Amino acid sequence: MVSQAEYDIVFYEAFEEEQELLRKLVPEHLKARFTAQTIQEAKEKGVPAKLISIRTQSKIPYEWNSDLDGILSRSTGYDHLTSYRQKTGGEVALGYLPLYCARAVAEQAMLMTLALLRKFKKQTTSFDSFSRNGLTGGECQDKKLFVVGVGNIGCEVVDIAKGLRMKVAGFDIKEKVASLEYTELKTGLAWADIVVCALPFTKVTDKMLNYDAMKMLKEGALFVNIARGEIAPLADLKRLLDEGILGGIGLDVFEKEKTIAAALRNKIEQDDEAVKIINELKTKENVILTPHNAFNTLEAVEQKAEQTIEAVAMFLTQGKFPNHIPEEQYA
Amino acid sequence: MVSQAEYDIVFYEAFEEEQELLRKLVPEHLKARFTAQTIQEAKEKGVPAKLISIRTQSKIPYEWNSDLDGILSRSTGYDHLTSYRQKTGGEVALGYLPLYCARAVAEQAMLMTLALLRKFKKQTTSFDSFSRNGLTGGECQDKKLFVVGVGNIGCEVVDIAKGLRMKVAGFDIKEKVASLEYTELKTGLAWADIVVCALPFTKVTDKMLNYDAMKMLKEGALFVNIARGEIAPLADLKRLLDEGILGGIGLDVFEKEKTIAAALRNKIEQDDEAVKIINELKTKENVILTPHNAFNTLEAVEQKAEQTIEAVAMFLTQGKFPNHIPEEQYA
Repeated sequence: MVSQAEYDIVFYEAFEEEQELLRKLVPEHLKARFTAQTIQEAKEKGVPAKLISIRTQSKIPYEWNSDLDGILSRSTGYDHLTSYRQKTGGEVALGYLPLYCARAVAEQAMLMTLALLRKFKKQTTSFDSFSRNGLTGGECQDKKLFVVGVGNIGCEVVDIAKGLRMKVAGFDIKEKVASLEYTELKTGLAWADIVVCALPFTKVTDKMLNYDAMKMLKEGALFVNIARGEIAPLADLKRLLDEGILGGIGLDVFEKEKTIAAALRNKIEQDDEAVKIINELKTKENVILTPHNAFNTLEAVEQKAEQTIEAVAMFLTQGKFPNHIPEEQYA
Repeated sequence: MVSQAEYDIVFYEAFEEEQELLRKLVPEHLKARFTAQTIQEAKEKGVPAKLISIRTQSKIPYEWNSDLDGILSRSTGYDHLTSYRQKTGGEVALGYLPLYCARAVAEQAMLMTLALLRKFKKQTTSFDSFSRNGLTGGECQDKKLFVVGVGNIGCEVVDIAKGLRMKVAGFDIKEKVASLEYTELKTGLAWADIVVCALPFTKVTDKMLNYDAMKMLKEGALFVNIARGEIAPLADLKRLLDEGILGGIGLDVFEKEKTIAAALRNKIEQDDEAVKIINELKTKENVILTPHNAFNTLEAVEQKAEQTIEAVAMFLTQGKFPNHIPEEQYA
């Protein structure tokens, strides 16, 4: 069947801006197809190419397994790829793009940190009455920042925080990080003025920053999550805020994010507990919420297109991706 | 009359939090009086001390001139002191506190810069519909920041911007600054992605960043003012925004700030042009307004109290202030 594949590569889920960049960068000799649709929406009759590229919304048909050589997900997360491998047990090469938006996400994390420190939400709403009551904030110089998860994004957070003259410590599930004081989770949480979560979501990190872990924070500490909502459950965050353990929260990611997004987009009343908490949190002056947008810079969108084409070129010449899912990786 | 002065020093306009800190720090042997009132509100019958300390709201009676040794304004601005000297021609020593809030103001300027780059106002309002349309922002790494006014605050802006890996150039009315590429105003404005105004307000800087100066900006440049509103008139900023020359504006200070503050506090319709412009600007997604609050951090409030007591101690022993108004300073 493979010999009948019509294209060298098909790009699914490539939205307008990304598609434009990909078309510009793809080598002329390649037969490439571009679509904004998912595999399901495209209603494919068979495998259109030995190499396909998706984002996170396509469900890769299990029956394509034997005809595919490689799947490149143009995303930093790759749960969907490991899940596919677990289901098929196949040997399709699986690639992803871990680096395209590390700086964008880190800058958003630090913007949220500064905004919480300076009571920025209240500053801007207080403009309407030109009042300065309750607006005394904190400076980031010399504040203690604990970076939980010092991978690609966490390292950029560390870099920015040092530039802002903060004191920085870090924890990671994988390895001790050079050029940074490595700190156990409990120790770091007790030490921190601010905690930034930049962990990957795995079985190990699921609910890692729950109430029991975070209750050892200093009173009034700040928490920012730009990683995955499931790591710090919403009910726990709300309790920590209600009890004054947390003094402010900045979230770009959410537990049960699809449910919350659907409820907000469609303005429907939801009986879901997470949705209820979000509706309460978003009215608070010391809570800043953004719609999973930390990745979204022009630089990141451009880098993503470039890295996609590089990964495609490497795969077609060397049969492997610059960044591939290791076999032992859990979902 | 001087020998009859009842106190060693009287602190006017010392609000609750500041007064508490000052009382804690003032040497026990000094006869000090503290009040939240201005000189006018306190209805003084005569000069209560040879050394008085005010902020910016008291009108110093001209007839006190011959009985005063020194006036310490607990503020970074000192227009009111130079104006007093011009009116009285007297030799009263005039002190101020240039340094207490430099980092606080600079951090606010950079917070505004990051917020404008990342469309943060729109990001947070878009959370209500969990929509990411039109939220693609810019990263600060490698952006060109032009710091107009490289004094105490401007130098801190430069430090933070370098920590954020921005490209930085600076202009000042006074002197060329070491460790920074000094750039002429026109050259810098044409080069910049972002302009931060940190100039002092003087006859020379009045309206310095008007339409004619700023029209040479690149399309979509960002402008942040944490200095004085009069340096960048509101009508000019609005025109630059309307014409797309400015892509975003962050203001903590305002031309005709007292009029604007009064209109906003009292929710009164104002026929004033500045108030009208502000009411229009504050609805825009790419305009961030804060109520002259850049100075307002706990660190700055504490430093102000410490520096006040140091200045008082120095004046009482050496007859001069650590930071005094030079004779040639213009209002």
